[in-house]
Amino acid sequence: MTQPASTLPPLVDSVLQVRKPYVLFLGDVTEATDAKTAFGLRDWCTADCIGQLRLPACTVDTGLPDLSPIEAKAKGAGSLVIGIAPIGGKLQPHWVPLLVEVLEAGIDVVSGMHTRLASYPDLVQAAQKGHARLIDIRHYSGPLSVGTGIKRTGKRVLTVGTDCALGKKYTALAIAQELRRRGLPADFRATGQTGTLIAGRGLAVDAVIADFIAGAAELISPANQAEHWDVVEGQGSIMNPAYAGVSLGLLHGSQPDAIIVCHDPLRTHIGGMPHIPLVPVEEIVDLTLRLGRLTNPHIRCVGVSLNTAAMSEAERAAALAEYEQRLGVPAFDPMQRGVERVVDFLLA
Amino acid sequence: MTQPASTLPPLVDSVLQVRKPYVLFLGDVTEATDAKTAFGLRDWCTADCIGQLRLPACTVDTGLPDLSPIEAKAKGAGSLVIGIAPIGGKLQPHWVPLLVEVLEAGIDVVSGMHTRLASYPDLVQAAQKGHARLIDIRHYSGPLSVGTGIKRTGKRVLTVGTDCALGKKYTALAIAQELRRRGLPADFRATGQTGTLIAGRGLAVDAVIADFIAGAAELISPANQAEHWDVVEGQGSIMNPAYAGVSLGLLHGSQPDAIIVCHDPLRTHIGGMPHIPLVPVEEIVDLTLRLGRLTNPHIRCVGVSLNTAAMSEAERAAALAEYEQRLGVPAFDPMQRGVERVVDFLLA
Repeated sequence: MTQPASTLPPLVDSVLQVRKPYVLFLGDVTEATDAKTAFGLRDWCTADCIGQLRLPACTVDTGLPDLSPIEAKAKGAGSLVIGIAPIGGKLQPHWVPLLVEVLEAGIDVVSGMHTRLASYPDLVQAAQKGHARLIDIRHYSGPLSVGTGIKRTGKRVLTVGTDCALGKKYTALAIAQELRRRGLPADFRATGQTGTLIAGRGLAVDAVIADFIAGAAELISPANQAEHWDVVEGQGSIMNPAYAGVSLGLLHGSQPDAIIVCHDPLRTHIGGMPHIPLVPVEEIVDLTLRLGRLTNPHIRCVGVSLNTAAMSEAERAAALAEYEQRLGVPAFDPMQRGVERVVDFLLA
Repeated sequence: MTQPASTLPPLVDSVLQVRKPYVLFLGDVTEATDAKTAFGLRDWCTADCIGQLRLPACTVDTGLPDLSPIEAKAKGAGSLVIGIAPIGGKLQPHWVPLLVEVLEAGIDVVSGMHTRLASYPDLVQAAQKGHARLIDIRHYSGPLSVGTGIKRTGKRVLTVGTDCALGKKYTALAIAQELRRRGLPADFRATGQTGTLIAGRGLAVDAVIADFIAGAAELISPANQAEHWDVVEGQGSIMNPAYAGVSLGLLHGSQPDAIIVCHDPLRTHIGGMPHIPLVPVEEIVDLTLRLGRLTNPHIRCVGVSLNTAAMSEAERAAALAEYEQRLGVPAFDPMQRGVERVVDFLLA
């Protein structure tokens, strides 16, 4: 899905801006599952991905043209995105010579890995030589303030969830796309690493100092024209034992007029935590609305987004009917069916 | 109030340990309000404060003996605590020569200021020379993990609040002291800067990366013997637009068996935010219990701690009676009356 150009006034400097178009770096991986970021970008911002850069040993292929650093520059590449997640999240030393070539050609290098790019002196030197940037989207070190709770103009919808990894980003992208298809001013607002790469800008709220979660969320969806919709990518869940703090700060800072709750009907426990049963979706909605009223008294739930990827067509239809009845709002799976009904309901 | 010695097994390294006893550094301040940390330590861990260190221009006096760096070392000082908060939270360059003397004498220097001590080469050199440490309790850089939600042995009580700065730390200190007075194994668990200084160890949860709030809280109150109580210092409020994320991560990570809600009956709005009305204490309790059930299904509210400092005796009595009736649990002001009834209720 291509992120459309922004209708917004320029964002403050502390929200990260990444230069497009992208070349996807695949290193020497041999398993497609190690290149999830690359495949995600290829699928979600297809028009922004102009090629791939691989070492000879690489057997994974995104289908994009192979480009050398010089060829990438000639085609106008803005950034090389490290699209792979090696074990331990560390940059491999034998990648460095190729990354040096990229930087010296004037192309930014963007990484979501634990290792900071700037910890490699060769990369720092090459970036200076090529007037290129080293961007670590996992590490945020820009200026931030604490949240203020002050009402901003413009309208906001936030995706929330019963857990992580069940469709909050994809739902937000699909809603933003549908709003724009109708000619309405709308922007997807990225709050995580992959979302930031898709949108070309954003801020990973889970990477800021805890005091500044809500303040960061306030920056991500700044004041806007009255009819403008920010569709904010949710993170985690207020009922996930690891990440609830991030989710609540994001809720308060986003001050949403509407939420869409994302859920996987087949999931019984928090991912990776068999000792923590999933909380019913009704409880998530009720708690989210009560907590969210602090910064937006008019908050309401407008839809339930179901991840039905593992279901048969009959199971999917039954699940959508069941959750629509339980919650009294449109139920949909943005991967399987359109989001027209939930956007109708949002705008009604 | 003196923090009693621990009954615990050694904490993991990532919880900060500060060496006692303390000498309090007052610099050259001329207003007592600029020395709140120093007065707090003098009052809350009196037996751990052996003296003060002042520049000639200082007119503020804690009443503790003035000590030179050499005298402080001779009396066994473990740390010099910078007990003042200058405007902008910055270390003043003209303090440096005296701090160098302290470090060279082998005394740690502990700071809660924004400026990192290690950003002063003279201090780094002096610390190396004196085998002393530079400790920035505002900046946490140790290893942390995300929360797991796994049940730990031992019992925990957490103070929560309708806002910041209304008695959560003092309430926790008073409860821990009363439990120990009864001969029960109990520890105050510090989650903020001043609390860490009082206890001699702790971790400022608002200073960690957002992803790790709950994981940090899990470290702060580790598994313990079945009858042991950890009394965990709360932070912020789940209904404070700036800090709610910290409060919720601390709740989930602390997995408390009991909460005590702290409130100021005269406060109508969140401190510093006239546009955000305070949420009723009943709503805070209900939301906290429902959110807290995620990691402890048996969580219950055992008391309401009222900050009645600004009330007459008649108003105080009326407020305590009113809140005790409204919430159905003991109401108390730990600064004005004892905490015996609430501890009875906790243990019942």
